[in-house]
Amino acid sequence: MKVIQSIEEMKKEMRRHRHERESIGFVPTMGYLHEGHLSLVREAVKRTDCTVVSVYVNPTQFGPNEDFEQYPRDLDKDAEILDEEGVDYLFTPKDSDMYPNEYRTYVEVQDLQDVMCGASRPGHFRGVCTVVMKLFHIVGPDRAYFGQKDAQQAVILKKMVEDLNMDIAISVLPIVREKDGVALSSRNSLLKKEERSAARCLFRSLQLAMEAVRGGKRESSEVVNLIRNEIGKEKSAKIDYIEIVNKNTLESMMEIKQGRTLIALAVYIGKVRLIDNMIV
Amino acid sequence: MKVIQSIEEMKKEMRRHRHERESIGFVPTMGYLHEGHLSLVREAVKRTDCTVVSVYVNPTQFGPNEDFEQYPRDLDKDAEILDEEGVDYLFTPKDSDMYPNEYRTYVEVQDLQDVMCGASRPGHFRGVCTVVMKLFHIVGPDRAYFGQKDAQQAVILKKMVEDLNMDIAISVLPIVREKDGVALSSRNSLLKKEERSAARCLFRSLQLAMEAVRGGKRESSEVVNLIRNEIGKEKSAKIDYIEIVNKNTLESMMEIKQGRTLIALAVYIGKVRLIDNMIV
Repeated sequence: MKVIQSIEEMKKEMRRHRHERESIGFVPTMGYLHEGHLSLVREAVKRTDCTVVSVYVNPTQFGPNEDFEQYPRDLDKDAEILDEEGVDYLFTPKDSDMYPNEYRTYVEVQDLQDVMCGASRPGHFRGVCTVVMKLFHIVGPDRAYFGQKDAQQAVILKKMVEDLNMDIAISVLPIVREKDGVALSSRNSLLKKEERSAARCLFRSLQLAMEAVRGGKRESSEVVNLIRNEIGKEKSAKIDYIEIVNKNTLESMMEIKQGRTLIALAVYIGKVRLIDNMIV
Repeated sequence: MKVIQSIEEMKKEMRRHRHERESIGFVPTMGYLHEGHLSLVREAVKRTDCTVVSVYVNPTQFGPNEDFEQYPRDLDKDAEILDEEGVDYLFTPKDSDMYPNEYRTYVEVQDLQDVMCGASRPGHFRGVCTVVMKLFHIVGPDRAYFGQKDAQQAVILKKMVEDLNMDIAISVLPIVREKDGVALSSRNSLLKKEERSAARCLFRSLQLAMEAVRGGKRESSEVVNLIRNEIGKEKSAKIDYIEIVNKNTLESMMEIKQGRTLIALAVYIGKVRLIDNMIV
């Protein structure tokens, strides 16, 4: 596996692979890799000739009071893992190359960026769209892989690619969970022991919601109440949002329509903000 | 010359040329072609294997009270001219394909978009950046050609390409003028006969400014006054802005520095807004 920091070198390598008509699979990450990331990496390795993973904690998607500094990092370990998985390139650009002082250009997907996580994290998805657009231009992949855990991100990036006429297929792969149901997230490492246990309330409440829907409940407000009550049992948990939306347009749904509805939540466990979701 | 309306067909053709490793030159226009456009087209034909010209009056770069409806159009004549110039592809996408109802994604270059024409036309450069980004993704050129008449547009698009790490070289070619000095513009066709004569005041005032600078004047405010007085002599002329700025950053310059300063103006002649500029 080649580890590349320079944007120009990365572009040059990718041009070579494109000229040889190899398919390029790309997994953009913020590193501190877990099995969720690795499910994407394995799919890319299996499906494309040349697999590129980027590890870059993107400053423009963090708000001024968010956890950019605290976000967990371990590049050496990430490199070791990716090498074992058969990845061809690890791209680790520098902040000063990605966003030089005179940097000015931003990409945004209106409306979709303003709800759910976008409402709690203004500017977050603009940062995500901008960095992904940059990485897409640098790597030039045929296919890029994202996790369903960041459901809103996946919807927004698909929309961006479609609207801006990019020839990149987007694969969104299922959430990978711990045995106790907690969705894998690099931020889980920031949880204290008791908090890690409390974090189970996200999945537990989603399961309750799912059961209620299976049992015939369709009224979104009732399902939201179920979730709210379940999370309320954990005293370290503070709800950021519980949303029941169309899984493609992210528009609020008063009534759940099976196969088309996304139940998404963001919950603070202590100071750590976790997200989880389920398509019902 | 192939005339293509479908985005997917255009992409398919361009993929073929890229696979054959031909260089692609691209001239995006809003049509109603004049010698200014043709200077770009001829350069592209001369310098690249495959030349693509788009004719698309982009609705997102016009404000609600601007001249989108009145903007002159003559696609048949444009096609005839481009065919004679040896252009390979004329791309004429439809509004409903470029901006379907659920369209949401925009690209913007902050700060640079807020001054000069951007101050008078809020949202204009966001529309320009967005459509050019879309066209760049559809055509995938190695080199794109723009006119110096739209000086701010050229600065912004260069910045966009650099910031978003696109592999597209941008050529900016000199303003082409009528014998009497008026910069060629599709909007000149909207001028009444007396207005066409009044329109000479833009170039005349720029020439006066240039002479003053050659004569040693460096104080921007004095040069602005010279221009203001000259344009004031035309009673159908109404100044939108006169700016003396750094030619790369568009930052105001109190003092003119030779080779680095752009004098740019926008003037209404009757209802038609004309722009012109000079690097001194």
